[in-house]
Amino acid sequence: MAAENRGWFYVKVPDASEPRAQDIYELRVLPMPVVEEGMILVKKTMIVVAPMARTYLEIPNFDTKTEKLGLKKTQLNQPGKCESVGIVMESKSKKYKLGDRVLLPFNDLLEYSVHRDDGKDSEFGPPLKVFDFVRTETQLTALSPGAGLTAYCAMNHPCGRVEEPLCSGGLLSCFKGLFQKKPQKTVLITSAAGAVGTIAGQLYKRKGCKVIGVTGTREKADQLLNFGYDAAIAYKTEDMDQQLAQLAPEGIDVFMDNVGSHQLDIGTKHMNVSGKVVIVGCMSEVDRFGHEVHGYKGYLHVAARELTVGGFLVYNHVKEIPLAIMSMAWMLQSGAVKPAATVVEGSFEGWAKTVDAMMSGATFGRLLLNLAKS
Amino acid sequence: MAAENRGWFYVKVPDASEPRAQDIYELRVLPMPVVEEGMILVKKTMIVVAPMARTYLEIPNFDTKTEKLGLKKTQLNQPGKCESVGIVMESKSKKYKLGDRVLLPFNDLLEYSVHRDDGKDSEFGPPLKVFDFVRTETQLTALSPGAGLTAYCAMNHPCGRVEEPLCSGGLLSCFKGLFQKKPQKTVLITSAAGAVGTIAGQLYKRKGCKVIGVTGTREKADQLLNFGYDAAIAYKTEDMDQQLAQLAPEGIDVFMDNVGSHQLDIGTKHMNVSGKVVIVGCMSEVDRFGHEVHGYKGYLHVAARELTVGGFLVYNHVKEIPLAIMSMAWMLQSGAVKPAATVVEGSFEGWAKTVDAMMSGATFGRLLLNLAKS
Repeated sequence: MAAENRGWFYVKVPDASEPRAQDIYELRVLPMPVVEEGMILVKKTMIVVAPMARTYLEIPNFDTKTEKLGLKKTQLNQPGKCESVGIVMESKSKKYKLGDRVLLPFNDLLEYSVHRDDGKDSEFGPPLKVFDFVRTETQLTALSPGAGLTAYCAMNHPCGRVEEPLCSGGLLSCFKGLFQKKPQKTVLITSAAGAVGTIAGQLYKRKGCKVIGVTGTREKADQLLNFGYDAAIAYKTEDMDQQLAQLAPEGIDVFMDNVGSHQLDIGTKHMNVSGKVVIVGCMSEVDRFGHEVHGYKGYLHVAARELTVGGFLVYNHVKEIPLAIMSMAWMLQSGAVKPAATVVEGSFEGWAKTVDAMMSGATFGRLLLNLAKS
Repeated sequence: MAAENRGWFYVKVPDASEPRAQDIYELRVLPMPVVEEGMILVKKTMIVVAPMARTYLEIPNFDTKTEKLGLKKTQLNQPGKCESVGIVMESKSKKYKLGDRVLLPFNDLLEYSVHRDDGKDSEFGPPLKVFDFVRTETQLTALSPGAGLTAYCAMNHPCGRVEEPLCSGGLLSCFKGLFQKKPQKTVLITSAAGAVGTIAGQLYKRKGCKVIGVTGTREKADQLLNFGYDAAIAYKTEDMDQQLAQLAPEGIDVFMDNVGSHQLDIGTKHMNVSGKVVIVGCMSEVDRFGHEVHGYKGYLHVAARELTVGGFLVYNHVKEIPLAIMSMAWMLQSGAVKPAATVVEGSFEGWAKTVDAMMSGATFGRLLLNLAKS
């Protein structure tokens, strides 16, 4: 085992419009943490590369109030945050043994970390053991809060839902509902080839929806047809507005947006009256937080068509996570849903460079940095 | 009675960013309509001056789909639309007598019009007789779909509501709710001195809320304290952002927005997590439909704080109107709510000039053009 620990620290408030991880973070050497009774030492073996690492930084004069929903912001001179799977290197707990794989859902960007086996040092409880039959990639895609579980919970959000909860309209309408054929709903998903989109497409397809995705390239758009999508638009080379008019002349009923700005505007233009938009992310504006913002110009349609737009943040849905895990695990086991990931081999000290290289948008599914071979 | 009829017709698609009524509409002379059996002839005596007259124009390449919610767009070379009260000048119906006052909720901008007493020529049914004890000004403020009834229904929209419907959480929570003291909600209303705002302030106050308004001038802001508002901000001379921080350090729970763009952005910045925004109007962008749009830049907070933003259009709530009228009439009778209007004397042929003069934002409450003395 290494004699010392390392961590990526948030050292510079981003001032450019598209800051690089290499400019914001700095690698620091730290003493190895001490493993006390009832604790385990974990070494990260696979790290999720996601905009999260940049979005959740504390930026002066930009209070998003997300802390109140359970998300802790990274302060200057604190380690960055990430989702990861690690391996138990030392155990002073009866609950974990050497070599166990554990999920660290929202954790410090340190190579080694210690965790109490009673979970009292984390709002997520003790590190979750990864089941033997679940691959590390699958854990960090379909079964991770930032990907598959977000897709699952956002689809069950009032603004992401394609069907009302059972018996919400009373016993009679519940009874009627069992025998009534419901009209097919049309769903639009942006960043369809991303960590959330690749799972969301499959989940909506299972609900009987017509699912349309938006992604960067035609190559990725074609791949999406294997992930629940009926059709996909390559926005970099195709006119999203024209394509939507052709692909969904009936209009969009539910829109799961991960991108914001232009794509949110164009999607909204094609919404049906009384339609619903669930905003899961604002990837296109993530780096501009506090700087110049394009905004949601399509909001004029929100009033004119009585749309409902709901924000979704998975940290506000911790109570729903156990059911989401059970449902997703069942669908994975039965083959009803499959994970999508791009795994890059690398090292812990190469993290920032890898992040910047992987953020070009050329990858498919969740982006994972594998440290196991380094 | 006049030998001929007159009407204001939509003749030019607006191309400037702030078009004047005089540029878009033209006064035309028409033959007097023929009164057939079962019909009445009505002469307008008071017309509502509202942005509606401009918003609801058919503009090429700008499909708002509002028609599907029941609102009929005005085509080029059709008469404009307005809300008005008129007087029955000729009656071939047993249901109406000469001199009856009738409400025409969304009607052609003609001096004289004929209406069937069975209502088969209007989506709003037959002209509604104004009760003897209701003044014309009160009918067109508190009891009109575009003002008081919009305020009432928007407050009962899921995104405008400050309390959940009785028993929505089941019998036990309903029982508990009867005995539980609920924390006070803070409500923000923009265009507080407008037709909707002057009523909405009083309605939210009756629900026990702390109500904060935004209007143009300090003079109007002071007047608002007589219309349910606990405090009001004069945005033209005061910093809305700073004022909100001082007046509502606890944060905003419900935001009824009639203005859009900057005021919507600033209000959203002060929203509490899981807060709700009901968009009733976009007055600041109304004249820019299809042109340059500022947009909703505060939508980044919608995701970060899990806000829900709902559009409201009264034409989608026709079923709720009878209950709204009953409730509002009761509150008016008991003095619990009072109407606010600015009445200007004028003539039918002076309509466009009066509209342009009255749109400066210097008036308080609903703007009414009285033709009775012309």
